[in-house]
Amino acid sequence: MSDVFVTVEPEGRKIRSIAGVTLLDAFAASGVSVRSECGGRGVCGKCKVFVTEKTRVNEVTDQEKRVLTGEEIKLNLRLACQVRLEGDLTVMIPVESRVRQRRIQVAGVEVALELSPAIRKLRAQPSSPTLLDPQTYSERLLRFLDETYDLGGLTINYEALKKLPGALNASRRDVTATVWNSREVIDVEAGDTTQHAYGLAVDIGTSKIVGQLISLDDGQVVATSSLENPQIIHGEDVISRITFASASEAALDQLQSIVLDGINAVASRVCTQAGVDATHLYEMTIVGNSAMHHILLGIPPLSLALAPYVPTVKSSLNLGPKDVAFHMNEGGNVHLLPLVAGFVGADNIAGILSTGIHKSKELSLFIDIGTNTEVNLGNSEGLLCCSCASGPAFEGAHIRDGMKAVQGAIERVSMDANDHAVHFEVIGGGKPVGICGSAMIDILAEMFRHNLVNRTGRINGEARSKRIRRANASLEFVVAWREETDKDEDIVITQGDIRELQLAKAAIYAGCAILMKHHAVSPEAIEKIYLAGAFGNYIDSVNAKIIGIIPDVPTENVVFVGNSALSGARMALLSTDVRREATDLSRQLTYVELGAASNFNEELISATYLPHKDITRFPSIHKILGNDSRTG
Amino acid sequence: MSDVFVTVEPEGRKIRSIAGVTLLDAFAASGVSVRSECGGRGVCGKCKVFVTEKTRVNEVTDQEKRVLTGEEIKLNLRLACQVRLEGDLTVMIPVESRVRQRRIQVAGVEVALELSPAIRKLRAQPSSPTLLDPQTYSERLLRFLDETYDLGGLTINYEALKKLPGALNASRRDVTATVWNSREVIDVEAGDTTQHAYGLAVDIGTSKIVGQLISLDDGQVVATSSLENPQIIHGEDVISRITFASASEAALDQLQSIVLDGINAVASRVCTQAGVDATHLYEMTIVGNSAMHHILLGIPPLSLALAPYVPTVKSSLNLGPKDVAFHMNEGGNVHLLPLVAGFVGADNIAGILSTGIHKSKELSLFIDIGTNTEVNLGNSEGLLCCSCASGPAFEGAHIRDGMKAVQGAIERVSMDANDHAVHFEVIGGGKPVGICGSAMIDILAEMFRHNLVNRTGRINGEARSKRIRRANASLEFVVAWREETDKDEDIVITQGDIRELQLAKAAIYAGCAILMKHHAVSPEAIEKIYLAGAFGNYIDSVNAKIIGIIPDVPTENVVFVGNSALSGARMALLSTDVRREATDLSRQLTYVELGAASNFNEELISATYLPHKDITRFPSIHKILGNDSRTG
Repeated sequence: MSDVFVTVEPEGRKIRSIAGVTLLDAFAASGVSVRSECGGRGVCGKCKVFVTEKTRVNEVTDQEKRVLTGEEIKLNLRLACQVRLEGDLTVMIPVESRVRQRRIQVAGVEVALELSPAIRKLRAQPSSPTLLDPQTYSERLLRFLDETYDLGGLTINYEALKKLPGALNASRRDVTATVWNSREVIDVEAGDTTQHAYGLAVDIGTSKIVGQLISLDDGQVVATSSLENPQIIHGEDVISRITFASASEAALDQLQSIVLDGINAVASRVCTQAGVDATHLYEMTIVGNSAMHHILLGIPPLSLALAPYVPTVKSSLNLGPKDVAFHMNEGGNVHLLPLVAGFVGADNIAGILSTGIHKSKELSLFIDIGTNTEVNLGNSEGLLCCSCASGPAFEGAHIRDGMKAVQGAIERVSMDANDHAVHFEVIGGGKPVGICGSAMIDILAEMFRHNLVNRTGRINGEARSKRIRRANASLEFVVAWREETDKDEDIVITQGDIRELQLAKAAIYAGCAILMKHHAVSPEAIEKIYLAGAFGNYIDSVNAKIIGIIPDVPTENVVFVGNSALSGARMALLSTDVRREATDLSRQLTYVELGAASNFNEELISATYLPHKDITRFPSIHKILGNDSRTG
Repeated sequence: MSDVFVTVEPEGRKIRSIAGVTLLDAFAASGVSVRSECGGRGVCGKCKVFVTEKTRVNEVTDQEKRVLTGEEIKLNLRLACQVRLEGDLTVMIPVESRVRQRRIQVAGVEVALELSPAIRKLRAQPSSPTLLDPQTYSERLLRFLDETYDLGGLTINYEALKKLPGALNASRRDVTATVWNSREVIDVEAGDTTQHAYGLAVDIGTSKIVGQLISLDDGQVVATSSLENPQIIHGEDVISRITFASASEAALDQLQSIVLDGINAVASRVCTQAGVDATHLYEMTIVGNSAMHHILLGIPPLSLALAPYVPTVKSSLNLGPKDVAFHMNEGGNVHLLPLVAGFVGADNIAGILSTGIHKSKELSLFIDIGTNTEVNLGNSEGLLCCSCASGPAFEGAHIRDGMKAVQGAIERVSMDANDHAVHFEVIGGGKPVGICGSAMIDILAEMFRHNLVNRTGRINGEARSKRIRRANASLEFVVAWREETDKDEDIVITQGDIRELQLAKAAIYAGCAILMKHHAVSPEAIEKIYLAGAFGNYIDSVNAKIIGIIPDVPTENVVFVGNSALSGARMALLSTDVRREATDLSRQLTYVELGAASNFNEELISATYLPHKDITRFPSIHKILGNDSRTG
């Protein structure tokens, strides 16, 4: 038996094998990864490679003629499992044949993920029945899938059953079966549709619904869309939605339809954007806080708002599209990630999944800032979590010139030391109309840094600054003069605004402090802080520490991760392993009820100071500010 | 420890036990059967007994005060599990507390059945959550059911989840959970609704839809209703329905909605009749031939009508009400019994279940006569089956004065030997308007017996009978003179009618003959013949043998079982064991394709003779008729 050398492009790696062996086996022996669903039976068509010197291999086989198009054969595309080595050759593994690993981008972090979606589309050519072999068509399909893809114990659902006869007839029994969770055939189509498999990752925020259409074949994001949560007309925050939904069955029905319509609108938009037929949308993964979760399902949410704040259900759920009228493939699946507690939802679990802190040895703090801010502390050994009633200030509510992180919002601010001149950046460029959360942090930190507010948050009326003025019997700070803005007046931060921000940041820090105390660790022990929230693209970690939102850890260890909930939903769409991790997290996360902590009020009050009443907790800030009156 | 004697009424049996033991344990030790779902925890309320001498037992316990009504306590009703023996006493076990066994009535046979429906309604009192015990409401319910009823691994479905918070609130956490297949909670209601559990057994015939509402608590039939299968406007027989449904997707949809509406109409009628709320209709079991099955499900049925006549699916199916828009409890289940082959459907399996031939050692023949007649031969060792294209003659079609077995049909006929005077009975009394299948058998047998037709089925024009006359160049026999009828003309049997009946009976007998040959048995070996079909209440076994529909076995061994399909559906509703038997049957029944039998045509032609070309196959008929020209 003679040695044969195969050069594998694009890496240019050279592997040794022996004549007569299939290319797929040669790859396997040398650790070259190529996709294959059918284990080398020439059926699935996944192991396509370009053979650049085709004279050195066997002729195109009958099986390849069945699976490959005429066009592909002309391009010297072959199935690695059908190519037998006869001499040295060079092959090129195209992107679509590489073993699928995706790097999930979360702003600031990147998570590697082995693709193992619940949805697999598999080609199948079941045989025809005869009088002597009268097995039914569904049995024949399931037998083929078992024998070819090693999928024993499969069933076929009702929607797929209805399509089976038509698909077999239209294609002379050459069909694509869509299999869910290696358990159930949920669709059957004529011909090869293996590349048309899509899923939608959905984050239902209290204020925004965001959806991403993902190709389940290669893991790529193909379209993203979002809209304001249309429930907003029934209240801005979770509590007012729960109150509204609890008034009557009709009210709950109404809130449910509104959010459902919103999700369907997002699904329809992304499908249109990407030119994807909705029948190829097979799965949705949905995350959201517990109230959004219950309302979407039409489960009365009142218990979430009353002590002891217990959900009706917290485990993950798989629903059929007809259960809640989702517009997608009729045999498809809607997966709702699990909850943790009444005020810690699936969005928090998704956030943890996206940061990976549950698998890391590093002691990490993950904070998702919103109207309710979830704080998680721990590592692969265990995680604590809590929910802080931080209010919507950082999302722009209850702040005179506050707004969400959308076009026209000031998102970052710096200030000159001598004349207090304000420099700002506006989302989308142009003149600003308001201030979003990240800029509020900057403004408060800069004012504190330049002695324009003191440690209790009081604006310094004595400061020599033309930007500080009295209006309506109280002080305010002018961030942008009228002529700099796109509105008819100055953009300001009032004393009242600062009080709101202090309460918000105090709630968040108190949550962190109580978890640290529970875990018996000091800030120095924290190796990483992941910060998520609707801050747009930016947050200044030093400023966040100066005003004391987060514990004092080295700035380089603070990572801003943006919409981590959506990233987690995307990961769950692409990997059933991730879904198992989510279930484990839902069971293992230790929920700490802040209201039950004896030191909660004290922690909260101490944390309203800038950065904190106990300045020794913020040694690096102490240094920055110097030993002046503010920190004495 | 002193002996105590308990007299158990109504049987009057005396059992011995010892003081201090609970009555339920005393029953168990002595083999007295009493219902108990919770194993003696005082929760389920099923083991109620009347204690006639209440001074000899302990006081009513707190648990009994919770489960029994004040009225019940006044009546000296106690829970056997809560009563501790203190001295001799007499108790009465009321009907509702007896272990549930039902005798399923099939006309002519009676099958004993241990009640084990898929639906169980169980009382549950889950505890309230606290800050320290924050398990969700669904987890608490499932834990209670596991601990109290030993139901591990239960899940709760989406419809039940939605109802859970409301039911707990409305009842201070004293609810009834409906559990399907010991696997899934499908409904939750406030208070004790354990007795409100109903199921609908449905037989979808080609011509008739029949439904029976059954109490799943005690197995009683509470209402029955039927209507003509409204699909009839698209063809009388299965083949024309299949042809219609195969024209387009819209045509299939149309046929599907029509039959669905029919089932929903039957469901609504029986619920109204019995005063049952449709939300308490938890299950349907549906049987029908393979074409009715596929069309109801919207599965293209064309393959059933084309060789090799293979269904798309034959295994049993469980569907949600929303899958096919059934009107019933939204969390309920629709169970379709399995099929055998393209022309042997779930109705045949149900028929076998109701006769019990698959569990008997007796070699039995079960024949369900219809447009397609299914024949089954065998016993507990194995069963053969086939389908005979017998046509709709016995249901009245293609017979001049033929009609179904409904009001106004002549259903039995006898004839005087000397003057051929005809005596008949009419369904519902009154004057007749036509002849149904059982009377056709009688007429043909009597005509043959009295030499008015010969062995080839030709009417004897030479016979001295004023009832035989020539009309339209062919002979006919007057069954009822115009003045005896409720119509404007005589009721007759024509030569053409007799030819139709001969073809029908030949098809049936040929099926029997080929199965007997396959099984290598002669008619003498057959110990029982079960005859089913839409014959109304009656069929004359001797006459059936005289014209040669069925093999010649002793008359006392022929049993008419009426609508055996509906009985089988009812049994499947009441027992999950029966569903397992159905699945086994679907796999184990050996289907014999008559078209593939080499001797089929010969058998068919020989069987058109009265009773058969080979008279030695009918020795008892030979004897009855005497050794005259007809049998020579």
